[in-house]
Order: sequence, then C-alpha cells, then structure tokens
Amino acid sequence: MKTKFNSVLIIGMGLIGSSISRALTENHVANNVYGLDSNNKVIKKCLELNLLIQGETNLENFNTQFDLIIICTPLSKYEKIFIDIASYISKPTLVTDVGSTKMSTINDYNKIKKNSNINFIPSHPIAGLEKSGPEFGFSKLFQNRYCILTPFKQDDKAIDSISQMWKSIGMTIEIMDAERHDRVLAMTSHIPQLIAFSVVGTATELESHMRDEVIKYSAAGFRDFTRLAGSDPIMWRDVYQKNKNAVLEMLGRFSEDLSTYQKAIRNGDLEFLENKFNQSKKIRKEIEDIGQAGSFDPTEKKN
Amino acid sequence: MKTKFNSVLIIGMGLIGSSISRALTENHVANNVYGLDSNNKVIKKCLELNLLIQGETNLENFNTQFDLIIICTPLSKYEKIFIDIASYISKPTLVTDVGSTKMSTINDYNKIKKNSNINFIPSHPIAGLEKSGPEFGFSKLFQNRYCILTPFKQDDKAIDSISQMWKSIGMTIEIMDAERHDRVLAMTSHIPQLIAFSVVGTATELESHMRDEVIKYSAAGFRDFTRLAGSDPIMWRDVYQKNKNAVLEMLGRFSEDLSTYQKAIRNGDLEFLENKFNQSKKIRKEIEDIGQAGSFDPTEKKN
Repeated sequence: MKTKFNSVLIIGMGLIGSSISRALTENHVANNVYGLDSNNKVIKKCLELNLLIQGETNLENFNTQFDLIIICTPLSKYEKIFIDIASYISKPTLVTDVGSTKMSTINDYNKIKKNSNINFIPSHPIAGLEKSGPEFGFSKLFQNRYCILTPFKQDDKAIDSISQMWKSIGMTIEIMDAERHDRVLAMTSHIPQLIAFSVVGTATELESHMRDEVIKYSAAGFRDFTRLAGSDPIMWRDVYQKNKNAVLEMLGRFSEDLSTYQKAIRNGDLEFLENKFNQSKKIRKEIEDIGQAGSFDPTEKKN
Repeated sequence: MKTKFNSVLIIGMGLIGSSISRALTENHVANNVYGLDSNNKVIKKCLELNLLIQGETNLENFNTQFDLIIICTPLSKYEKIFIDIASYISKPTLVTDVGSTKMSTINDYNKIKKNSNINFIPSHPIAGLEKSGPEFGFSKLFQNRYCILTPFKQDDKAIDSISQMWKSIGMTIEIMDAERHDRVLAMTSHIPQLIAFSVVGTATELESHMRDEVIKYSAAGFRDFTRLAGSDPIMWRDVYQKNKNAVLEMLGRFSEDLSTYQKAIRNGDLEFLENKFNQSKKIRKEIEDIGQAGSFDPTEKKN
C-alpha cells in the first residue's frame, strides 16, 4: 500500500533533491512537489526542467502548508532550516532529510524550540553520484539501494510513512541508531572519500611535468579516486566537521594498516602482501554477490 | 601502413594476454597467434574460446619460430622467461611486454646471456580491468588508451614496429625513459592500488557486525576502492617488489598530505578542507576533459 502525499517540500534542489523530486513524481508518491533553494539559478533550472509545481528561494514565499518536508542541503545549513520551518509550520508535518551524518542532525534538531506539528524522522538514502546540480539528477538513483532511518523516538506511524515513501522510489529500509550509523558510514563513505581527495591532492602538488603525466595516464587506477574527488566540496567539508570523532577513529585505523603495508614493501615481505591482497579480493566478491557494486565501463561514453 | 606479423607468441594468457590475442586477430595484425601459459586450465580455456592457433604450457612444445613475442605474465616470471626464450629463439624476433614497472624489466633482461636474434622493446599499455582470466578479456580494452614504450637502445625500426602493433589495436604511443615511467606509474597506479587494498583491508579487520555493514552499505563510496582491490594479488605483489623505491617515495608524500587533512579535521579547519576539495575537483574535470575518465554506472548491470 502506497502512502500518497498531497504536497511535499524539498529543501535543497541539487543532485539528490532533484532526483527525489523526479522519483516522487514518476512513482506517483506526491501530487505536488515544491522546491526551496537559496540559489536562484538552481530554482530557475528546476522550473525549466519541470521538476516543481513551485520553486522559491525563501520559505515565506510559499502560500501553503506541506505534508512532508525533505531536507537535502549540506549539513551546515540544517540548524537554520530547522529554525525556519519551526516558525513556518502550522499543521502536522512529517520532516526527514538525506544527510550523511545522523548524530549531528539529531543534535541540530534538538537545539531548536519545539513545534509540536513537526515530526522529524532522520533518513540517509545511500545513493549518490559525483556530479552536483539539478541537471544531473535522475529518478532511478535510489533503485536497489539502502536507506537508513535513525529515528530517535518511537513513533511507528511516522516511521512507517517515511519508510513507505523511500520504498516507493525503490529503496530498502534499515533502522539503525544514529551513533552506529555514523561509525559505519565513516568507514564506507567518509574515509574512502577523504582518501580520494587526499591522493588527488598529492598529485596536484607534484612537479608540474609529473602532474600533467599523472592526469594523462590516470586510467591506470588514479581515475577511480578522482571520480569520488569530483564530489561537492561544501557537502564534504560539512561531513568532516559533523562526524569528526568517528572519522578520526577510522582514519587512525587506516593509517596503522597502511604502515604495515609500507613496512612489508620496504622489507620485501611478499607473503604478507599476497595474503592481504587476497583478503581484499574476497571482500570485492562479496559486494558483487549482494549486488551493490555498480558497474564500471572502462571505455568512454559517447558524447 | 600496418605492420603485419606472421606468427606472434603471447606468454601469459590472462586478462591482458587474451585481450591482445583478440585484438591482434580482429584487427588483422597477426596471421597466427600462439599462446604459452604455465596453467593448463588457462590454455584449455583459450582454445575453447578459439583465441589461439596453438596453446602450450611449455615453450619447447612449439615447432616454430616467431616474429613477435609479447610477455604478459606477472613480473616475477620475467627473468626465467628471458632465459627460456634466449635459448629457444633462432631467428630475428621482436620481443615486448606489458609489465607495470620498466626499470626492473630492463634489469631482468640485461641479466641474461645475450641472444643477438632478440630485439627487446619494453612496453606498458595503460589499460586493464579488475578481473583476471582469459574469459574476461576483450578486444576493445586498448582503444583510446596510452601505451608507454621505454626503449633502452636506439633502434628506430624495432621501436616503429612495436609502436605500429599497439597503434593497430587502438593505442596512442608515448616514449619515456624507464625511471620516469616508474615514478609516474607509482603515483597513477601503484599508490591508488595499494591504498585501495589497504582501505579494504582495514574494513576486513573491523568487528564482525561492522564488517558486514560496511559490505552492505558499500555503495556509499567504499565500493570504488573494492573495484581496484578485486585485481590479481600476484601481479600486484610483484609490482611492489619491483618498484619499491618509487612506491615508498610516493607513499611518503601521500602519508604526509593525509596528516594535514587529519589535523584540519581535528582542528575544525573548514577553509583548508574546502580549498583542498576544490583543487581535487578540478583535477577530475581535467581527466574528464581529456577523455580518460571511463564511465561509471551507479546501477547494477543486468545478469
């Protein structure tokens, strides 16, 4: 059974927000999708692409209340958004988000003056691409991907509504506490991303002839890191601020492990390297087996 | 003008060797492709796939001489292969290889007793996939990719023949000295690969519930690292032995840089992070602009 929303407001109409608006419309989950974004160009683009019934750069310009609000902005904007919607909302409204850290999200929410019409269920749909902007969004982004919910109070009806919404656009729901979410995501997302930025950063600081050659011959492996490093800088800057502790813990583990590889290379310990590489190969196999690997095409796409 | 070879021997019929055999045949560069592999199953598979006119596990079993020999094995086998072919070859033969390190290749070659019929021009086609085995090879693997030649003596005719061969299967030729090749490839290939193995290794050593969740939610970024980490362990073990110095140098630079990110996260230096992330994003753009980015499909391929 599908929950149908009459009016949904998406705050932040970038890649994720615009993909959600497409998916909600295509799957008939929402009658009317409204969009709010601080950048007027983004709103203009969304209206051109026919993604919204109404788009505004200021919440006060809307003349309606919403059944559901989905926050899709960088994490640093959450606190102000919670304040703004708390003073705007005058009828019962479900609120969710798509942020990559959940402890900080809940903390930001708990700081604001309560509005009893707001029912906030934090979400994190694990889906994305390295592109930014509404023109790159697409409705299938969420299909066969997980969405983690980290509810901080027991409200079965609200949790069920939010779950149904994500399911309607193709996602599988998992409930997790926020602290555990933040540790798991530090390892699966925040650390790989930071390392990708850092490896690419190292290359930018090479002598200039080396730098040009690294770019030229990037198909040798480097390009896999640059794909991640093409992601939105503001979004990621905020993640490292908001999930500092878990990120520093996992980064510590990674650095220790990397030192053991370094030592093995220095000492010519081939057996150690071969064993480690075999273990890693197995993990890849498991990810392929559960259908979470995506697919990489080593050829260029036709323009 | 195409150089046509009458008989080509490929030593090592894995992903790369089998892709070369397909490409040489499809592009009419070779009349007869012979294959040598120490693993009888690999040879059987190649014959099933109709990739070879003759396949053997022992060089002595061939009853013919070759115009061209291409070595496509892990680097640790090179020295023995050079010895074997030097005692087998009795007419002028071009020899090349596809190895990821070139100083070690030339050293291995220089160690053996000279056979004046051998003309060795080292190559490194920058193309690959994380899969291993002849069943995963395909003829288009080399199209629009670079092939670096590191000749150690001036023999224009031989260099031209080898260049033509790679060009015939779609590659662009670059000539470089071996030492520079090894430093550039340390950064574009060996370091990203080592870090990918290491990040995936860190995940395997987490508490078991965390490990399962990291696999489950790998679409968040981690899976990009596991793609590289799915590569052949033996091949890579050999690379780190053979390119030890350049790898340790670049690894040192990377570790220093990563520490600066770690410090910025600990101190909440958001400006530093944002600047660095913006620089990395620009490098990605350059790689896309020169058509070396490949294309990633975030959805699963239909089976």
